[in-house]
Amino acid sequence: MEHKDWLQPKERLDDLGINGLKIIQHPDEFCFSLDAVLLSHFVMLRPGDRVVDLGTGTGVMPLLLTTRDVGSVTGIELDRQISERAARSVALNYLQDKVTILQGDLRQLKGVLAAGAYEVVIANPPYRPVGGGYISPQAGIARACHELTATLQDVVAAARYLVKYRGRFAMVHLPERMAEILSVMGAAGLEPKRLQLVHPHLNKGPNMLLVEGIRGARPGLEVLPPLIVYEGDGSYTEDLLQYYPKEIRQMAVKEGRQMLR
Amino acid sequence: MEHKDWLQPKERLDDLGINGLKIIQHPDEFCFSLDAVLLSHFVMLRPGDRVVDLGTGTGVMPLLLTTRDVGSVTGIELDRQISERAARSVALNYLQDKVTILQGDLRQLKGVLAAGAYEVVIANPPYRPVGGGYISPQAGIARACHELTATLQDVVAAARYLVKYRGRFAMVHLPERMAEILSVMGAAGLEPKRLQLVHPHLNKGPNMLLVEGIRGARPGLEVLPPLIVYEGDGSYTEDLLQYYPKEIRQMAVKEGRQMLR
Repeated sequence: MEHKDWLQPKERLDDLGINGLKIIQHPDEFCFSLDAVLLSHFVMLRPGDRVVDLGTGTGVMPLLLTTRDVGSVTGIELDRQISERAARSVALNYLQDKVTILQGDLRQLKGVLAAGAYEVVIANPPYRPVGGGYISPQAGIARACHELTATLQDVVAAARYLVKYRGRFAMVHLPERMAEILSVMGAAGLEPKRLQLVHPHLNKGPNMLLVEGIRGARPGLEVLPPLIVYEGDGSYTEDLLQYYPKEIRQMAVKEGRQMLR
Repeated sequence: MEHKDWLQPKERLDDLGINGLKIIQHPDEFCFSLDAVLLSHFVMLRPGDRVVDLGTGTGVMPLLLTTRDVGSVTGIELDRQISERAARSVALNYLQDKVTILQGDLRQLKGVLAAGAYEVVIANPPYRPVGGGYISPQAGIARACHELTATLQDVVAAARYLVKYRGRFAMVHLPERMAEILSVMGAAGLEPKRLQLVHPHLNKGPNMLLVEGIRGARPGLEVLPPLIVYEGDGSYTEDLLQYYPKEIRQMAVKEGRQMLR
């Protein structure tokens, strides 16, 4: 089948720039951004780990995780159209044996996914509480950015339900919500163990937070060196280039999408 | 009176390198370090603010705060000998009208200091829970490093008791305890609002955390740019030089004390 035969009207095929992976995106919907790429690198994986991605959207993180040594990845997505598109992205990469896309609600996992059965849960959830800032009239974008269908509490509760004892939960979120994030994770028994802040420039505050908790671990947080995105001259730092395939960067610039707020 | 007349056996007089301030230190006791200097710069002060320093030790933070526009500073210290020495440091700088040193227990402030009467509370508390690591046989050093006489909970509770509505609590602590710190502060109603991580080098994790909470504030944390101490070549960064008077740095090197773990 030709690649274009996978596409529906207005959809486009983007290159993930690693292992020849392709992804279907719709320009009116939420397109993946740096957050997803960084989280896919940040999360600790052991060979054979079974992973769930809560609110998978385009399916970008399940696709990227297949480039690491992972057992299986299940992406769950509320929106029927978006989950169907993610499933087509999996199929066109011939990754159905590794990656499953489920249409479903992360607030209602009982009977859908088994409790305590996964080594790893990841999430790139909506960042902003309802009431905080402009909400997009595009339903898919609104749900991806605002806690319309899942709050931080919901996401952490879903992770706690899925992850086994000593399993890991990794999330990307906003630094301004760090106090709440660490409290909610700790209260749910997903003790925060590793954290990294992503700064657009060395002399700027961070605009992203990567955090990983371990179910049942003792308190004690390792904070990593800051991840700086840009050099003073506007070029990408060595650290970022290492994470971020060239093709994605070019695509991002070309499309002018929100990659770095 | 000659400066040497202020000193008791084995004590020495150190120069704080700003406004001609001097401080009496005892080489067998805990000598102040970078932590105190950075917190004295980090805390937000408004003209006329009344400040309490919980566990003041040598009295270094009250002394340094007099170089900013502060109303008054009260340092409370459990150890009678250490508090007496801090009071002498205040007297030899002729700062008794601005700075008061009280011998007392921050766990028992009722009847000692008024509730909700202070704009600002600061603390450079013991960092390590009892049971974590080597405990110094020197009682003063042990109490300064380990939570023998005041836990994180005690310090935050004392701050909550002292600070007025919309007042500020600023603390320096270990990044590995960040999750606990933010949770305990939030639970006490001292909402974390500003945080900075101090990294010895750009490519190292942080070894200090500066945090400021506001009583009664809404959630939402501003994370500042990382504060990097050393350049790649081992010299101090511009940011640090700005905070850290030259005389203190030379003294620190000369004395070989623990300035940066």
